[in-house]
Amino acid sequence: MKGSHQNITGIDPKLLDHYQGRWDNLTKPVASLGRLEQLACRYAAIRHPDLSGIESKYLFTFAADHGVALAGVSLYPREVTAQMVQNFLSGGAAINVLCKKYGIRNVIVDVGVDHEFDPTDGLVPRKVRGGTRNFVQEEAMTAEEAEQCVEVGFQLAREYSDQGAGLVGVGEMGIGNTTSASAIFSAATQLEVQLVTGHGTGVDAAGREHKIRVISDALHLHQPDSRDPWDILKKVGGYEIGAIMGMVLGCATQKVPVVVDGFISTAGALLACLECQPVKEYLFFSHSSREQGHSAVLDWLGVRPLLHLDLCLGEGTGAAIAMDLIDVSVKLMTEMATFDQARVSRHE
Amino acid sequence: MKGSHQNITGIDPKLLDHYQGRWDNLTKPVASLGRLEQLACRYAAIRHPDLSGIESKYLFTFAADHGVALAGVSLYPREVTAQMVQNFLSGGAAINVLCKKYGIRNVIVDVGVDHEFDPTDGLVPRKVRGGTRNFVQEEAMTAEEAEQCVEVGFQLAREYSDQGAGLVGVGEMGIGNTTSASAIFSAATQLEVQLVTGHGTGVDAAGREHKIRVISDALHLHQPDSRDPWDILKKVGGYEIGAIMGMVLGCATQKVPVVVDGFISTAGALLACLECQPVKEYLFFSHSSREQGHSAVLDWLGVRPLLHLDLCLGEGTGAAIAMDLIDVSVKLMTEMATFDQARVSRHE
Repeated sequence: MKGSHQNITGIDPKLLDHYQGRWDNLTKPVASLGRLEQLACRYAAIRHPDLSGIESKYLFTFAADHGVALAGVSLYPREVTAQMVQNFLSGGAAINVLCKKYGIRNVIVDVGVDHEFDPTDGLVPRKVRGGTRNFVQEEAMTAEEAEQCVEVGFQLAREYSDQGAGLVGVGEMGIGNTTSASAIFSAATQLEVQLVTGHGTGVDAAGREHKIRVISDALHLHQPDSRDPWDILKKVGGYEIGAIMGMVLGCATQKVPVVVDGFISTAGALLACLECQPVKEYLFFSHSSREQGHSAVLDWLGVRPLLHLDLCLGEGTGAAIAMDLIDVSVKLMTEMATFDQARVSRHE
Repeated sequence: MKGSHQNITGIDPKLLDHYQGRWDNLTKPVASLGRLEQLACRYAAIRHPDLSGIESKYLFTFAADHGVALAGVSLYPREVTAQMVQNFLSGGAAINVLCKKYGIRNVIVDVGVDHEFDPTDGLVPRKVRGGTRNFVQEEAMTAEEAEQCVEVGFQLAREYSDQGAGLVGVGEMGIGNTTSASAIFSAATQLEVQLVTGHGTGVDAAGREHKIRVISDALHLHQPDSRDPWDILKKVGGYEIGAIMGMVLGCATQKVPVVVDGFISTAGALLACLECQPVKEYLFFSHSSREQGHSAVLDWLGVRPLLHLDLCLGEGTGAAIAMDLIDVSVKLMTEMATFDQARVSRHE
């Protein structure tokens, strides 16, 4: 897919103004719906739909295993990745409850889980390999695998855009993947490893120190090029993170806005922005995770997350909530009465 | 109603622990749903329901006019209060769109609008008087009127609790009411008037200076007792703010949690807390308004709002969004699978 996202351009500011003008005619003080107005303007400027609302909403949960999990960086055993995928498929996870409530279709994609799932399970099978290599010792993936996992996301974006997706969310599952995300953040932003490394699923202070050491050693060993997302992905990334990068690029190509979940999904989005700067305008960053370093990276990207709920679960949970906020913002913009319709006096 | 809220007691910490224990068995890292877990725990500790979810949700929009609007403190003419009530009744306002989306029943209460509505309009008629007096010159209301408007909210809380309300939101409409709310905040918290006075529906810098002068002069004239909510309400309050105070007290009496909207609703909630400290445990503060001073007052109350969306509209708009977050938090707590059910390994 390299190069196939050349048609991505930034949003036309005139379209943003057009939709802001619409808001300013609605029965409320100017700008009083704050960020909801901005959300709807950006959504509409990307989709410029007939404004009967948002078409189908899809949330993709990309799952993959990580070789670095063998380095003792997580509180949970590696098999939890596959177990949680089963939990997604049987409807017991947080993301299932959220998608059901919000009318979002959840698509679970196996990009690299170390488990052979039954084909009847309802999973989208796109396994690149049963987990990355342990980047403590070697590069996480080959250059071909990096292209392959990004292509998974890129192609799914096209496929679901063709099926009418009007808004896409991205989330993930993978034991060990906060370690990979922290390594990506430090490699790409040059922020200190300890600034962008947290407790993941709950390791203690000593566990976090260990994670920091593991990441620092790996970055020292591999020396990823901070300007090259492919080099970073290959050396310290994960297949699900590459798939998120690809889906972000693919959605922007198709002019479908993407809601980014938390810490790990931001790593995929960051790689996509390194690859193609204007992509950022198609992204909505859903929340500021409790995971240390997330807010620093969002600041580095110059974006402001929507929610501050101390979430640090992943799966797409924060993205699902934010998708519903975007949905409500568009409903407000399209369903509220104007001053003329409601015969309400404008200000003097 | 004075004294009839004597049975309000704080939440039993053992119940909070009980529900946190429930969360800790669900398939996710401990505490990873952050504030959503806390929301559901507090909700459940108040209602201790069978956890099939939240019963009927009601959002009350209390409307009233303000004598101080004649002092030129608002950008909009006074008749907009009545016009916006008509807009609520015909479904064109922001709060209508939100309540429809979230499955919340919206109840519009006339506590003091300067307009005679048609009885067939569907409004709940509880008019105390067609607007307060101009507190620049005289006390906003009599002691009897203060009791009367608080009683309106208190009785509606009982009535709707009997009808099965499981969660209540409070919002308001009233041209001039940010001026009243700022006066209440300064009187009760002793924060400087300029710290808690903003631009309301959009007055400019000079308009804001004028508001600050109007409020400062009124506080100097009336000298409200900072510890006495009735004295503050009577001297610089509004009928809708008194009704919110009463509804908060009434709901806590009935053990119904209340979601507080923005700047003006917080003034009503603050008066209720002054009257009866444990009430605060029944309150969920929905958002930090863009209106200057709101975050300072929330800090003074020692509460943390849920949303930061730069809203400053009122009506109950922020409360409606937060009510849905509470709804989703309870759904997550009750519908997610446990580790045993999903056969997911716990951490080592």
